[in-house]
Amino acid sequence: MSIVEEKLKELEEYLKVIEHYNQASALVYWDMTTGMPEKALDDRAETMSFLGLQAHNLSVAPKMDELIKFFESHVEELDDVHKRMTSELRKAYDKNKVYPEEFIKEISLACSKGEAAWEKAKNANDFEIFRPHLQKIVDLTKKSITFKPAKKNIYDSLLDDYEPGLTVEKLDKVFGDLRNGIVEILNKIKAAGVEVDNSFFKKTFSKESQQKFSIEVLNKMGFDFKAGRLDESEHPYTTNMGNKDVRITSHYYENEFTFALYSAIHEGGHAIYEQDIPDSLRGTGLNQASSMAVHESQSRFYENIVGRSKAFCKYLYKSAKEQFPQFADVDEEGFYKAINKVEPSLIRTEADELTYSLHVIIRYEIEKLLINDKITVDELPRVWNEKYKEYLGIEPPTDTEGVLQDVHWAGGSFGYFPSYALGNLYGAQMLNKMLKDVPNIYDEIAEGNLDSVHKWLRTNVHECASLYDPSDLIKRITGEELNAKYFLEYLDKKFKDIYNY
Amino acid sequence: MSIVEEKLKELEEYLKVIEHYNQASALVYWDMTTGMPEKALDDRAETMSFLGLQAHNLSVAPKMDELIKFFESHVEELDDVHKRMTSELRKAYDKNKVYPEEFIKEISLACSKGEAAWEKAKNANDFEIFRPHLQKIVDLTKKSITFKPAKKNIYDSLLDDYEPGLTVEKLDKVFGDLRNGIVEILNKIKAAGVEVDNSFFKKTFSKESQQKFSIEVLNKMGFDFKAGRLDESEHPYTTNMGNKDVRITSHYYENEFTFALYSAIHEGGHAIYEQDIPDSLRGTGLNQASSMAVHESQSRFYENIVGRSKAFCKYLYKSAKEQFPQFADVDEEGFYKAINKVEPSLIRTEADELTYSLHVIIRYEIEKLLINDKITVDELPRVWNEKYKEYLGIEPPTDTEGVLQDVHWAGGSFGYFPSYALGNLYGAQMLNKMLKDVPNIYDEIAEGNLDSVHKWLRTNVHECASLYDPSDLIKRITGEELNAKYFLEYLDKKFKDIYNY
Repeated sequence: MSIVEEKLKELEEYLKVIEHYNQASALVYWDMTTGMPEKALDDRAETMSFLGLQAHNLSVAPKMDELIKFFESHVEELDDVHKRMTSELRKAYDKNKVYPEEFIKEISLACSKGEAAWEKAKNANDFEIFRPHLQKIVDLTKKSITFKPAKKNIYDSLLDDYEPGLTVEKLDKVFGDLRNGIVEILNKIKAAGVEVDNSFFKKTFSKESQQKFSIEVLNKMGFDFKAGRLDESEHPYTTNMGNKDVRITSHYYENEFTFALYSAIHEGGHAIYEQDIPDSLRGTGLNQASSMAVHESQSRFYENIVGRSKAFCKYLYKSAKEQFPQFADVDEEGFYKAINKVEPSLIRTEADELTYSLHVIIRYEIEKLLINDKITVDELPRVWNEKYKEYLGIEPPTDTEGVLQDVHWAGGSFGYFPSYALGNLYGAQMLNKMLKDVPNIYDEIAEGNLDSVHKWLRTNVHECASLYDPSDLIKRITGEELNAKYFLEYLDKKFKDIYNY
Repeated sequence: MSIVEEKLKELEEYLKVIEHYNQASALVYWDMTTGMPEKALDDRAETMSFLGLQAHNLSVAPKMDELIKFFESHVEELDDVHKRMTSELRKAYDKNKVYPEEFIKEISLACSKGEAAWEKAKNANDFEIFRPHLQKIVDLTKKSITFKPAKKNIYDSLLDDYEPGLTVEKLDKVFGDLRNGIVEILNKIKAAGVEVDNSFFKKTFSKESQQKFSIEVLNKMGFDFKAGRLDESEHPYTTNMGNKDVRITSHYYENEFTFALYSAIHEGGHAIYEQDIPDSLRGTGLNQASSMAVHESQSRFYENIVGRSKAFCKYLYKSAKEQFPQFADVDEEGFYKAINKVEPSLIRTEADELTYSLHVIIRYEIEKLLINDKITVDELPRVWNEKYKEYLGIEPPTDTEGVLQDVHWAGGSFGYFPSYALGNLYGAQMLNKMLKDVPNIYDEIAEGNLDSVHKWLRTNVHECASLYDPSDLIKRITGEELNAKYFLEYLDKKFKDIYNY
């Protein structure tokens, strides 16, 4: 064994220990949200935070630095994968290492208190309960930026945490195009005056029957139940312990047919990405998704581009009609339109495909203002409501349905929201290329056959794991940079057909 | 804060870290047996072993010794609980510390290979597959004894691991009495020639209906579902993460009514013990059960002394009859007798209340012979079959139903089996005292009201946690030492009534 091989082995063992902690912590969290006895909460939260801290400490330990330095000084002996591994490890190490330990404790305490206060505030519809906590979190977030290398816009530092290389300059352009395009389509829909009926989705559907249908669809998607599970939690999410144990959760409402179904498809998209991460990248730290936005591109590709397509709705309709007498009077066209009904609404997670991105853009704009001291925490409810009025034409009657709806800020996740909309844009860019590679793909989709979709995504996206920065990945796949063009074209074509404008 | 208080705080923090590891590891095991996706097995086994090793390393670290030494040198400043804490920590530290690290790795590897080989051998009914592994495990077990202080009988060292203070000398006497007494009752039953019909328990009972009934009974027992769960696994067991998260598993056979029910009651007995461990003992290491035998006394008390009593069967019959049309033609007397049908059988875990202890005594006698080099591993199948012939009058047609039935030896757990029978004896001794304290307790039990049972056990056993050695605990409760007298009297009275001998 050469010295490089020995060190690679040593690194692999070191990263494995970090994974043991992270995976144990992920399991604790999954358990906590899917059925842990309630009296265990305090103790288990401590255990989870302990495990997370061990992982963090190992990731910033001198030993880690020493290993990275070794590879940096032997870079000419490394293949491309290990070169990428070295630079990615360095980036992550420097990013994690930059914060004083005291600061990490302070911000993590502020966020855990913040999340509790947020929940209380949301339930009580009282922003004031959350305000002082949010103020603290915003202050600490701004302080966190001071530890990092200066950027053109201070918000760039936050964007870069979730989408490496992304800047306000780029995003303002892209989100500007996106916002204008969506508002234009929305106006055309309003003008068309077509009414879409989706009342049949509000009939009663048992939890068991919904779950069975979700499992059927997940199987069609290629979700591997031998390397994953589907459970129920308050809010749907995906977590994974490596690529051999990827867990989806959903939530069933007996008076709403589409929520659980599209949650399962969305989370299934995340999950399949994780299941497809190649074993060969173990021990390099590259065995993870490229970025949060690329992750969202996969979940939203399955949820919307595939899942809400006319073709897939053909299959869904056929299968649902066999299982649910509730749809006896519904025809295929009505089913498809109902699934795609556009209706400006207050809650992001319940938004339709068209208006969803506007919810995200509003949050992006507000975060940018807040972090750049253009507005204060006190002004948030007012600014929030104004933006909803401006972009969506509706105003939240309560803060619970407004500024208090998302947990992200309470958790200190500033800079994360844009990922959701970027996922839409990446997805449409990928679709454009996919249709060139597999022109008849919608014919297969209409049969409920998603194998070609999965194969294309696996090869082009999933198996690339963290081998490329997201901006390089999208260029590699499509030959183009991030842009809103394809998504807007896709939306326009789709909704023109549905709303006859 | 005095220096002693400071050190107590320090110890508490140290023990908490060990608990984080142990609880995470327990959760991983629980998940593994209740629904982990199968492809995750190898990775998760590694994570579990990693977590266990961290806990072990901390328990034998110099820091632990240093803390114990501090309390040993300040013993006059400690209250009784902290005195007990100090001596118990010292005992555990010395016991764990005695093995060289290499030895621990060797025996744990041998056992993990042994368990895999045992499973294969059992499925293939081929002792030869398991034999070389068992040989290795027996050799290492004997070697483990050499690291420990010498005892009168070398098997004493193994007994002491599970039941502090127990010796072959004491156990030979007690088990001798027990064996003779049981065989005598068994002969009387055979001579009486009474046939008990339990065929109605072999009708079809859906898993859901059985589970519902188990939950009803667990609620009657006082199992706290806010600090625990009931799930399904291949073999029923109980695990706990502290006293606020105690998890029972059961297994449902659609053609057997009593297995799941009495598994739930048995595991429920273990679980209630753990839930009742007082919070006040946190941070002392005393917040655990007194011994394995005391643990079994609780599970078997609920399963047999309460659960198979005429009184409780009255309640069970009434409730079961309402839920299960399968019992339409069964009367209360027939139901009670069927639950208590005596029938010498091959499999320990399926044995009736009377013959169960004989299965345990056979294993005890065999272990004693094996560890003292009176028989060899090769001779095990023959010796096993001879003992079954002698004590139970039946001979296993295959090793799968004989020497290969239990996992314990593959896991290196020599000295554990006696706990099961000791649990019966402790239980009957406790019953004798309980009936003096609460003479009308069976009237309550007949109503399905187990509150007084629970209260008595909580006060006398559960809340004592590890404050006393098991031999002291039983003396404290009953004024007597371990003996077979009360259990035999109890059995004789019960089966005389059922079999009219």
